[in-house]
Amino acid sequence: MIEVLRLGHRIQRDKRISTHVDLVARSFGASKIYYTGQKDKSYEESVNRISGEFGGKFEIEHITNFKNLFKGKTVVHLTMYGEDFRKVMDKIPLDNLLIVVGGEKVLWEVYEMSTYNLGVTNQPHSEVGALAVFMDHLVKSKYPEFKDGKVRVKPSAKGKEFY
Amino acid sequence: MIEVLRLGHRIQRDKRISTHVDLVARSFGASKIYYTGQKDKSYEESVNRISGEFGGKFEIEHITNFKNLFKGKTVVHLTMYGEDFRKVMDKIPLDNLLIVVGGEKVLWEVYEMSTYNLGVTNQPHSEVGALAVFMDHLVKSKYPEFKDGKVRVKPSAKGKEFY
Repeated sequence: MIEVLRLGHRIQRDKRISTHVDLVARSFGASKIYYTGQKDKSYEESVNRISGEFGGKFEIEHITNFKNLFKGKTVVHLTMYGEDFRKVMDKIPLDNLLIVVGGEKVLWEVYEMSTYNLGVTNQPHSEVGALAVFMDHLVKSKYPEFKDGKVRVKPSAKGKEFY
Repeated sequence: MIEVLRLGHRIQRDKRISTHVDLVARSFGASKIYYTGQKDKSYEESVNRISGEFGGKFEIEHITNFKNLFKGKTVVHLTMYGEDFRKVMDKIPLDNLLIVVGGEKVLWEVYEMSTYNLGVTNQPHSEVGALAVFMDHLVKSKYPEFKDGKVRVKPSAKGKEFY
């Protein structure tokens, strides 16, 4: 099971970025996203709406204490300051894995408590881009299919098609 | 040369997402971003500030007519409705390439005029995530180093270090 933790959500400023984090987490195979910061019903609803339409079981949960989540899991914190992710990918398990993304200000404890602090490039980071590339490597570009989706897009060279 | 076109930027709503698109484009090896929609000085300034600090030559330019840009280039439009990108990656050239990302509403012409309409998963898309994964495959996970940066992060397992 792959889960994602999004730190420090702010309703006004982060709604779209947090939603992109969720879309990425879901499409590349995570089953749940936790988030800290401000509880945001409208954000939760848009995430649930997407799973409702496009299938799969993807959950979202607001939490206040992230430390309990870390227990007994391999925790990968994605940060532009981290080790080169390409060097450790073969050590990262696909099960019992928590992937953590910031948030503007990430507490020092997160660096200390994580099993790995990993950078997807050591350049100013998009947490959305970093999560996407990390997960793509993790699942070796094998993506879930969501066959139960009410809406199912059929890949098309020149238009919009559906199954 | 790899360039990116971001369609339909809206100052209020898109600033952060557009900035993430830029961060991704720059870190994975694009040299320039064009954008349509509202001209946004503060967005341009933040992109220029990042290149100024972290190195490399990454340009940003607002344009009004994207059609001229398409001429003589291989154009890859990333869309959740597109063909599976994994199947055509070996046909995509690293030179004279324009990668296009939306925008809420992408004009039909973009689908028609693009050389490829490609989906990174056919699930609801993050243009940031899709661009990151597409570019990562394109450059085969070999990222530019930006040795001229005033600020240069040194990869670190447990903290924040600099060269």
